Parts: sequence; structure tokens; C-alpha cells
Amino acid sequence: MSTVAPPPLPPLSPTDRTAVRRGRNRAVVDRAALHALLADGLVAHLGVDVGDGAGRHPVVLPCAYAVDLDGPDDGGTLYVHGSVAARWLVGATDATVCVTVTELDGLVLARSGFHHSMNYRSAVVIGIARLVTDDAERARALDAIVDHMAPGRSATLRPATRKELAATAVLAVPLREASMKARAEGPVDEPADVAAGGWAGHVPLRRTADAAVPDADSPGPVPAHVAARVAALSGVRSR
Amino acid sequence: MSTVAPPPLPPLSPTDRTAVRRGRNRAVVDRAALHALLADGLVAHLGVDVGDGAGRHPVVLPCAYAVDLDGPDDGGTLYVHGSVAARWLVGATDATVCVTVTELDGLVLARSGFHHSMNYRSAVVIGIARLVTDDAERARALDAIVDHMAPGRSATLRPATRKELAATAVLAVPLREASMKARAEGPVDEPADVAAGGWAGHVPLRRTADAAVPDADSPGPVPAHVAARVAALSGVRSR
Repeated sequence: MSTVAPPPLPPLSPTDRTAVRRGRNRAVVDRAALHALLADGLVAHLGVDVGDGAGRHPVVLPCAYAVDLDGPDDGGTLYVHGSVAARWLVGATDATVCVTVTELDGLVLARSGFHHSMNYRSAVVIGIARLVTDDAERARALDAIVDHMAPGRSATLRPATRKELAATAVLAVPLREASMKARAEGPVDEPADVAAGGWAGHVPLRRTADAAVPDADSPGPVPAHVAARVAALSGVRSR
Repeated sequence: MSTVAPPPLPPLSPTDRTAVRRGRNRAVVDRAALHALLADGLVAHLGVDVGDGAGRHPVVLPCAYAVDLDGPDDGGTLYVHGSVAARWLVGATDATVCVTVTELDGLVLARSGFHHSMNYRSAVVIGIARLVTDDAERARALDAIVDHMAPGRSATLRPATRKELAATAVLAVPLREASMKARAEGPVDEPADVAAGGWAGHVPLRRTADAAVPDADSPGPVPAHVAARVAALSGVRSR
């Protein structure tokens, strides 16, 4: 048998269901931008369908997550986790889910209500959720979620116990089918509104961290990986 | 005919499908806390189902929103808007949707990967989306969305034109069926991990605003309502 190279990844927005329809000028097609946004984000909003028949409806819940660009899924793997008792999460196994990561970068205050907007970066990933059953992959995914919160931290912790691993469900979503939108500019007003005068502009927003708060049982100074994380998060600026 | 008072609103998590199942200690049942979170949030993640039959799946997109506690829907009304050409949005008319608003307040760095967590406030509203057809309600909703971004701003703008209103779809979701979770504390570790030593704590996160950036055509100083908004957003602190 010959070795067949995998097909190249498409640009973002490759399929009908992730194609950016509205505000097409805002679409981003560079996978590096997707990867950068997923690295910046801390919370994903995971949408799954629950219920049956006419009672079927979406539920959207916030999740910690991590990305492994070398993961086993097409385009790389996005991991989310939760309790094995979380019906909504485990019930999404083998179903199509939607994972959305949004970073809000500013309020855009135009001269008409119609042209008010926000500056943001947002990624939408649609794919079939795979329940991770391999122990090594699950342990790697959980470490990646810890390290996404604070890079370098998982190496400072004891390994997960068998009981902890048994209590934790990990879902993997392929990154192949993804789209991204971004807006990063001031207001775009009607010429007549500009001519009429009046103030318009934007308010940059960013996330910032305050100094780490040790718990009552913590010895010594804040570890270097935590201090570095606080410094990095304090420096995340919007455009 | 006698006047019948409407039934009192239930506490949060009133129905099977919004009941908080996991982390029940995190459930918030006070509607005032829900209203406060919805006032603090700027972006909602709206989940709708798209597609048919076996191809039906959720899509989650970020939206600006506003709340009218005196709105016509049971428990008050949450409004989202978009282009009338946005199929995913308009297609949700009369369907059950899920609106989730999350504020991230901190990273919780425990002594085991298992007990890592985040501090956050998150509201999940599930309800049947109503397409707002009344012109007066639609104009009120759009003003509310502008004022949610910057309180007092809509009164400084010209009214929407008929063309703008015709191009804008507004969906209303009742606030009756809602749940809320919140976490606001340091790590909760296993006693054995505490005994083993090692640092644990949390990193407070908050959103902050930088000074408003006037566009090139803006005369004079930043209006008072914009400066007040920047000051208020700069002061939003996590716990």
C-alpha cells in the first residue's frame, strides 16, 4: 500500500454551514488567525442539541478548552471537558456540536444606532464530537486545558489519579470546519450623518489580570509560571 | 371579567431543561443576580438550530443584546438583533433558542489538574424566539441595544430611518426560563494535596476600557455619556 498524504486543509469557511454570510468583509480566512484567537481565548461557548423530536433544542454552556494543533483530528483538535455525569456534555458524543470562542475588543459608537457595532474576534467551529476514550490522550488533553489557563502549570502538578480520570469526560472536536470573523476599526457612518456633525468613535476593551491571590495554605512566593501568566494577561490589549 | 394577576415568576432554574445539574452548589436562584449579570455583560452567545432532519445541528454566534425587564414577554424580554438577511437569526423565529451570557472573573489554579477551575458568572436563558414585528417595539429594542453599550447614547442620535428598520430583524426571548451559575472563590483542593505543600491560588480577571478614541470627523471633546461609560467599564472588577 502506498502512503497517501492527507488532503491539504482548506482555508477557513470551507463549507456551506460555516461560510460567513453576513458581513463578508469581516471574514478571516487565515488559519494562523484562528489559531491565535484560540490561543488568546479562555472560555469557549459549546452548543449542543438536547432533547428529542419536537422538544429538541440547543443548549449553550461556557467551557474551559484547549487546542492541540497536532491532535488526531482533521485540522487539529479542540478539547473540552466536564464531569462524566454531565448529561448535556456526554450526550453530545458523536453528534454535531458548535464551539464558539469570542474575544470582545471594543464598543463602536457610531452616529446612528444602525451603525453601532463592536470590535471583536470570533471563531465558530462545527464538527462531530468524539468522546476521548484513550487514557493517554485524555491525560494529555486535561494537561493541555490546565496549561491553556497557565502555561507550564501541568508539569508542576501530580498526575491525575485513576479516580479523577474516571470522573472526567473529554470531548474532541476537529478544527477542520471553522470560520472566523473579526472587526477592528472605528465607526463606519453614513456620509449624511458625518456631515451633520456629532461625536463618534470607539472604546477599546481588553481583559486584564490582577496580581495572583495565594490561598491560605500556600507557602512562599507566587511561582514564576503564575507570575508570567498574570503579566501576559495584563498585557493583552485590544486593537 | 375579573382581572387576574399574572402568576409570580419562579426562582431561577425552574424547569427540567434549565435546572443546574452539575455543581449544584454553584447555582444562583436570585433573579436580581441574573438581572445584574445581564446588565454587566456585553455579548451574548445565541444558540439556534439550523438544517433539517439528520443534518440539524446547533450554531452559536456572539450577539449584542439588551434586556427590558418590563418587556412584553414572561419574566421580561431579552432582545438580540441582526440583518433581516441573516438566515440563521431570522430562521430561529418561533423556535426554541438558548442565550448564554458569561463573565469570566478569574482563573483558579489548584494543586491538582482536577480541581482547576474558573471564577465566573453565567446565565442560560432558554425560550421560544419571537420575531418583533411591532415597529414601536422594534425601535425601542434597538435603542435599548445601543444604550446597553453606552447608557444614554440613543437619545443623542437621530431616529432610525424606515430603511434601516426594514433591514433589521429583532428577536425577543422571554427571561422566564433561566438559570444562573457563579463561582467566586479560591481553589478547593484535596486535603492530601494541601498537606503535600505547593502553591495554589487564583488570578482575578476583569474587563477594562481604555480612553475613547474619537474618529477623524469628531468635533470637540468626548461626550459625557461616553466618558461615563469608559469610567464605569474601567471599574468593573472581578471578585
